[in-house]
Amino acid sequence: MRALVYNGAYDVSVEEVDDPAIEAPTDAIVRITSTAICGSDLHMYEGRTGAEPGIVFGHENMGVVEAVGDGVADLSVGDRVVMPFNVACGFCKNCEDGKTGFCLTVNEGFAGGAYGYVSMGPYRGGQAEYLRVPFADFNALRLPAGDDHEHDFAMLADIFPTGYHATELADVSPGDTVAVYGAGPVGQMAAYSAMLRGASQIFMVDKVAERLAMAEEHSGAVPVDFGRVDPVEFILDATDGGTDKGIDAVGYQAQTGEDTDEVPAMVLNNLVGSTRATGRLGVVGLYVPSDPGAPTEEAAEGRLLFEVGSFFEKGLSMGTGQADVKSYNRELRDLIVAGRATPSFVVSKRVPLAEAPDAYERFDKREEGYTKVVLDPAA
Amino acid sequence: MRALVYNGAYDVSVEEVDDPAIEAPTDAIVRITSTAICGSDLHMYEGRTGAEPGIVFGHENMGVVEAVGDGVADLSVGDRVVMPFNVACGFCKNCEDGKTGFCLTVNEGFAGGAYGYVSMGPYRGGQAEYLRVPFADFNALRLPAGDDHEHDFAMLADIFPTGYHATELADVSPGDTVAVYGAGPVGQMAAYSAMLRGASQIFMVDKVAERLAMAEEHSGAVPVDFGRVDPVEFILDATDGGTDKGIDAVGYQAQTGEDTDEVPAMVLNNLVGSTRATGRLGVVGLYVPSDPGAPTEEAAEGRLLFEVGSFFEKGLSMGTGQADVKSYNRELRDLIVAGRATPSFVVSKRVPLAEAPDAYERFDKREEGYTKVVLDPAA
Amino acid sequence: MRALVYNGAYDVSVEEVDDPAIEAPTDAIVRITSTAICGSDLHMYEGRTGAEPGIVFGHENMGVVEAVGDGVADLSVGDRVVMPFNVACGFCKNCEDGKTGFCLTVNEGFAGGAYGYVSMGPYRGGQAEYLRVPFADFNALRLPAGDDHEHDFAMLADIFPTGYHATELADVSPGDTVAVYGAGPVGQMAAYSAMLRGASQIFMVDKVAERLAMAEEHSGAVPVDFGRVDPVEFILDATDGGTDKGIDAVGYQAQTGEDTDEVPAMVLNNLVGSTRATGRLGVVGLYVPSDPGAPTEEAAEGRLLFEVGSFFEKGLSMGTGQADVKSYNRELRDLIVAGRATPSFVVSKRVPLAEAPDAYERFDKREEGYTKVVLDPAA
Amino acid sequence: MRALVYNGAYDVSVEEVDDPAIEAPTDAIVRITSTAICGSDLHMYEGRTGAEPGIVFGHENMGVVEAVGDGVADLSVGDRVVMPFNVACGFCKNCEDGKTGFCLTVNEGFAGGAYGYVSMGPYRGGQAEYLRVPFADFNALRLPAGDDHEHDFAMLADIFPTGYHATELADVSPGDTVAVYGAGPVGQMAAYSAMLRGASQIFMVDKVAERLAMAEEHSGAVPVDFGRVDPVEFILDATDGGTDKGIDAVGYQAQTGEDTDEVPAMVLNNLVGSTRATGRLGVVGLYVPSDPGAPTEEAAEGRLLFEVGSFFEKGLSMGTGQADVKSYNRELRDLIVAGRATPSFVVSKRVPLAEAPDAYERFDKREEGYTKVVLDPAA
Repeated sequence: MRALVYNGAYDVSVEEVDDPAIEAPTDAIVRITSTAICGSDLHMYEGRTGAEPGIVFGHENMGVVEAVGDGVADLSVGDRVVMPFNVACGFCKNCEDGKTGFCLTVNEGFAGGAYGYVSMGPYRGGQAEYLRVPFADFNALRLPAGDDHEHDFAMLADIFPTGYHATELADVSPGDTVAVYGAGPVGQMAAYSAMLRGASQIFMVDKVAERLAMAEEHSGAVPVDFGRVDPVEFILDATDGGTDKGIDAVGYQAQTGEDTDEVPAMVLNNLVGSTRATGRLGVVGLYVPSDPGAPTEEAAEGRLLFEVGSFFEKGLSMGTGQADVKSYNRELRDLIVAGRATPSFVVSKRVPLAEAPDAYERFDKREEGYTKVVLDPAA
Repeated sequence: MRALVYNGAYDVSVEEVDDPAIEAPTDAIVRITSTAICGSDLHMYEGRTGAEPGIVFGHENMGVVEAVGDGVADLSVGDRVVMPFNVACGFCKNCEDGKTGFCLTVNEGFAGGAYGYVSMGPYRGGQAEYLRVPFADFNALRLPAGDDHEHDFAMLADIFPTGYHATELADVSPGDTVAVYGAGPVGQMAAYSAMLRGASQIFMVDKVAERLAMAEEHSGAVPVDFGRVDPVEFILDATDGGTDKGIDAVGYQAQTGEDTDEVPAMVLNNLVGSTRATGRLGVVGLYVPSDPGAPTEEAAEGRLLFEVGSFFEKGLSMGTGQADVKSYNRELRDLIVAGRATPSFVVSKRVPLAEAPDAYERFDKREEGYTKVVLDPAA
Repeated sequence: MRALVYNGAYDVSVEEVDDPAIEAPTDAIVRITSTAICGSDLHMYEGRTGAEPGIVFGHENMGVVEAVGDGVADLSVGDRVVMPFNVACGFCKNCEDGKTGFCLTVNEGFAGGAYGYVSMGPYRGGQAEYLRVPFADFNALRLPAGDDHEHDFAMLADIFPTGYHATELADVSPGDTVAVYGAGPVGQMAAYSAMLRGASQIFMVDKVAERLAMAEEHSGAVPVDFGRVDPVEFILDATDGGTDKGIDAVGYQAQTGEDTDEVPAMVLNNLVGSTRATGRLGVVGLYVPSDPGAPTEEAAEGRLLFEVGSFFEKGLSMGTGQADVKSYNRELRDLIVAGRATPSFVVSKRVPLAEAPDAYERFDKREEGYTKVVLDPAA
Repeated sequence: MRALVYNGAYDVSVEEVDDPAIEAPTDAIVRITSTAICGSDLHMYEGRTGAEPGIVFGHENMGVVEAVGDGVADLSVGDRVVMPFNVACGFCKNCEDGKTGFCLTVNEGFAGGAYGYVSMGPYRGGQAEYLRVPFADFNALRLPAGDDHEHDFAMLADIFPTGYHATELADVSPGDTVAVYGAGPVGQMAAYSAMLRGASQIFMVDKVAERLAMAEEHSGAVPVDFGRVDPVEFILDATDGGTDKGIDAVGYQAQTGEDTDEVPAMVLNNLVGSTRATGRLGVVGLYVPSDPGAPTEEAAEGRLLFEVGSFFEKGLSMGTGQADVKSYNRELRDLIVAGRATPSFVVSKRVPLAEAPDAYERFDKREEGYTKVVLDPAA
C-alpha cells in the first residue's frame, strides 16, 4: 500500500510499504478514508525529535473496517470508525480510570501509546491506505454509515477531544469566563468546547487575524491580539480581576509577538496573570522533558521559570497532559450526529495522500489554507 | 488586655493593648482559651516580611464568646468556639463557592484575609486575651461546651484543615498511595488526613527522626529519611512507578539534606519525580511572589525552575493555596467529637501567654519540644 | 404600601398593608420592580394548603435597595438586586454546603425558608411595593444598574435556577440525551438549561401544543405530545434504549392525557421507563408528604406506588427537592449579561400589581397568555 | 469436573459436568481456589426465580489461571486472580463509564451479565473446579502470588465492592454520619467501607445480636436493634435530625421485627425517615421488577409504596443498583495488601465443594456459623 514515510528532517515521501496484517486476534485492519496532519507531526518533520527514518506518520485516522481478528467481538467488516490517536489496552489501571492517554500496556516502559509517533510504541501511522488497530473493540469508535460529517468525525481522532480535554482539565462550567491562549486548531477546539459547555465569555489570545476571526465567528470569542495589546492586562481589565478558567493551547514553543524567540513558559505565566484567584488551568499545549533546541540549558531538560509564587498565592490549580480521547469521543460524536457541533470548521483543505509532502511543507511554513489539512488516501 | 506584640525582627513581647470592641453589629468578641504559634508566624518573626512593628500575632484561635453585636443571629455569649485562620464574609463569589481562603470582601484589593498577619487585612491576632471576630456567625465554629479536646479543637483553626486541604487538593481516595514531603505539623496533619481518607500507603519524607517516628506512629506512614536515601528513588522502588498522589507540606524554604541552602523548587520537582503518570499533587507548603531573601533573582519574584516538561508528559495535575478552613472544620470537629481523630498529638507544649516570647525564640531555633506550642492567655 | 393579600380559596386582593421595616441590622428593604406569579402560588390560591388568610404572596422578587441595616456590609441603597425565593442564613451547615434551600436557621423546626409561602417561615411575600430581605448580603444578588434584561433577571429568583437545578440533579453533561416531562415554565427552563449545558438531544413531553412549540423553538427540543403517543415508547424508540438523563418538572399533580384524574407517580414511573440503565433523574416537580386532595389514602400522606423494582434493576439514581437558588443564580446572571441566555422567553405578560387578582384567576384557569405573569408594583 | 448444580427448589448437588474450554481467543480458564455462597444465590435456591435446572451456581470466584486464549494480552498461566461477579466487555458505553455492572455487550437485550445467575447471560458459575472467564484481561484482577489473604481477596468478587458501592452511591465522606440497614455480609461490608472512608458515626440496624456485635467490633458501629427500638426514632434522637447518609443493605425482602411478613418498602421508608434533609441514600439491597411471591399485586411488579412526598421535601437523593465491581476492586485489593482492610471477618466457614449442598441448606435456614460460607473445590 502507499504511505507517507519520514526520511529525515523536512523530508517525507509517499512510498509503497507492506500492507498491515492482523497480528493478534484482537486486531482490526481499517481502510483509511480521512487522515489529518497534526501540528505535533511537525515536531518530527522538523527533526526536533529522535524519530528515525522509515516511520509512517499519522495519528488522526478514520475509515472503514476491512478485516477483524477472531478475538474482535463487537466490530464488523464494513463498520465506519474513527480511532483515538492514543493506542490503549482498555484493562490496565489507567485505562480503567479513563486515562487512556496513559495506558500502561501498549508501550513498554512508558505510560501512553499512539500511532505513527516517535517513542509512542510500535504502531504504524495512518497517513496511508490501511491501518492496523490493536485492541480494536476498544480503540475504534463506530460512526453512522455513509459519508456524512466526514471531516467533523475526522476531528474526533485528536483535536476536538484534545480541545475538549483542555476544558475538562480546567473544569469549564456554565457561566465561566475562559481565556484560551493559542488559536491554532487545538485552541479553536478548546474555545468551541468552552462554548458548548456554557461559558459566558471566552477570550482568544493569538496574533494571527484569521485565527482570531475564526474563534470569534464559531465560538463567540473576544479576540485578543497579543501583537497589539498585553493579553494579561487586557483580560484583567475586561473581567474585573481575571477569568475563572484558563487554557494553554500553545505549549513550550511559545513565541513573543515581536520576534520569533521562544519563551517556553510565556503562556503558563500569562495564564497565572490573567486568571483570577481560585481559578483553574487546563494545559494541553505540549511541554517536553527533553528539547535539544531549547533556548536555555534548563529548558532543554524541561525545567522552566514558572511563576510558582503567584500561582500559589492565587490558589490556582492546573491539569495537564495529552487527551484521553476515549473519555470524550463518544459524547462529541453524538453532538455531531445531533447537529449541535460541527468541528470541521477548522479544516482548511482536503488533498490526496500523494500531495502530502507538499502539504507538510506548506503547513510547516504556515501558509494560508494549510492550517488543518485532511489527507485522502483514496484520491 | 495583654497581647503578644511584634516589635521587629526576632523581637516580640507581651504588652498591654486596648481591649477589642464590637465594631460592627455582626462582630463578636471571644475570650481566648488556646491560641497556637504557627510556622508561618516565623516568617514575620524573622523579619522576612513587610510586617510593621505593633502587629499582634495569632491566627490559630479558640475560646468562649464574651460578647456579640446585635446583628449576630446564631452565636451566644458563653458559646465555645474555634475560629478559622481565614477571615471571610460568607457572601462573596468565592465564599459562596466554599473558597473562604480567598474572600473578596474582607481585605480590600486582595483575595483572602486572616487574623494577625501582614497583608491579610486589619484583623488583630489572637495571641492575646480577647479577639474581635468579624462576621461572627460565619467565622466561628461552635464546639461542645466544657474543656474536653481543647488541643484537638485548637488544631481546627489551621493545621488540621490545612493538612486535610492538601489531601483534598490531591484528591486522596481510598486505596491511594501518597507521598507527603515535610513532617512538620502541617505535614503530620496531611499524613493523618490521608490515613483518615483511606490511603493504602503513605510515605513521609523528612530528615528529622522524631518527626518521621511521629508520622509512623500516628498515620502509619513509611518513613523516608532524605538525609540517607534519595526520596524519589526510594518511592519509585517501593511503589512500582510512583505514588498515586503527592503532597508538598514544605514550600519554598526547602533545604537539601547536606546543608541549609534553600532550593525553592526542590519539593515540587521531587514530587514530579515520585508521582506516577496521571497523579495529582496537593501543595500547601508556602510559595510567595516576593521573597527578598531568595537565593536567586528569579526566586525573589517567585519564579522557580519547575519541571514542567515531566509534569506535562506524566499528565499530572496540582492544586495549591492556603486552606479554606470552613470547608473542612465542621466535619473534622465531628471526627474529634466521635473519637475518630485526635490531632492534638502534634502539640508539644502548652505555655502561659507571658512565656510566648521565649517560646517564639525556641521554636525559631527548632528546639526539641517546641514544634507546636499552644499559648494559654489565662495562665 | 399595597400588596397582594390572600383572603381564602380563590380569593386574593390588593390591599394596603404596613410598610416593611428593618428588623435586624442585617436586613435590607427592597423596592420591588418585578415580581412574578409562580405555579406553586396556585397551591395556596386553590386552598389546597394550610395557608391562613392575610398572607402576602410572592417569592419571585427583584427590585432596588431602598434601605439597609447597619450590619449590611456589601449592599448599598440604589443597588439593583434579585432575591432567591429561598430565605437562607449563609452560615448553617446546609448553607455552607450550598444547600440554601434547606437552611437550618431561618425557619424554626424545618429545613428551608421562603418569602410569602405557607410553612416556609415568617417572611412576607414580594407581590407588593416593598420587601424586607433578611441576611441581605447573602440573600440579594446584585444586577447591573438600569433596566436592561428586567424579565430575564426576574427569572433568576426561581424558575431559571429551578430548571437548572433539575439538570444539576440529573447531572446533564455535554452529549447527553435528556427527557423533560412537563413544558410549563420550570420545564422550559430545564430544557433550556440542558441545552446550555450541551445536551445532544432533548425530548419535551407535554400535551399542550404551544408549550411544546416553545421548547422546540428555544431549546431545540423534540416535542412529544403524550396525548397522541406513549412518551415512554416514543423515547425508547428514538434513543435506542432510553435517554441518559430524565427530568420531572410536573410533580404529584400529574394528569393523564385523556381526562384530568391525577396519577401522582405517573411522571416518576414514566421516567423509570424512558431512562436507560445507569441513568439519572432530576426531580423538581413538587411532591408533598401531606395532600388532603389526593386520590388515595396513601397518596394523601405522600406514599406513591413507585417502580422501585425497575429503578433498581436499571441502576438508576435520582436527586430531588427545591432548588438551592444561590448555587446557580450568579452564573446564570452572567450568562444573561453576556447575552448567552434569555430566559424571559417564558414570560407571557406584564401587568400592574392592581390587576394581580385577575391574573391569578386567569392563570389558575390556564388561559392563554397567562402562563408566566410578571407583576409591576409601580404601574 | 465437579460443580454445584441446581436441580430445582431447595435441591442442589455436586455433579460431574464438562470441563470449561476456551471458546474465544480472549477467554481464560481459571482453576477455582475459593468460591463463596452469596445471599442472592438463595433467591434461586428457594425457587423464587425463573432459574432452570442444570444451572451451575457461583459468582464469587477466585483462583489461578489455568489456560489463556491467544487474544489474552496481559494474563498468564499461573496468575492468581479474583473475578468480579459481573461479566463485562470493557468497551461498551457503560463499561467505558465504569458502569461494568450494566455492560451492554455480554447479555443480549439486557444491561449487565454475571456468572451462574438466572437471566444474567450464558456464563456458567464458579462453584466448581474450573471457570471460563470471558474478556479475561478485563474480567480478572491479578493478586499477589501465594495463598495469603485468601478469604480477604475472595470478598473482592462481590460483597466488599458491593458494600463499598453502597457508600459510593451515598457519597459517604469523612465526618459523615451513616445509617446502615441490614447487618448481613453486605451490610457489614458497607459499614466497614463507611469506616474506611472516614465516617464519624455509623449506625447498624438489624435484629440479630451477633450481627450487630460484629458491626460494632469491626466497623465501630452503634448497634440499633429494631426488635427493641424504633430505628428511625433512635437515629433521629442520636443525631439531632438524622444521619447525613443512609444505606439499604436489605432490599425487598425486608421483614418487620415482630413476625416474618415482608414489607417490601420498609427499609427505604425508614431511610427517608432517619436521614436528614439534603442527605443521600445508597441502595444495594435488591429490588426486583417481578416477584411472584410478593405480598401485593403491585409489589409483584416491583411497584412499592415509597414515601416520595417526604423524600422530596427533604431534598434527598438516592443511587441504586448492583455494584460495578471493577470500579472498586483494585483499590480495595491494595488496602488488603497494605494490611488496612481485612474483610474476611465476615467469613464464617470454609467447606469442601462436596459439602456445598449441606451448606446451602444450613445457610438458607440462617443457621449459626453459616452467614458467609466459602467453598473449596480442591478439598
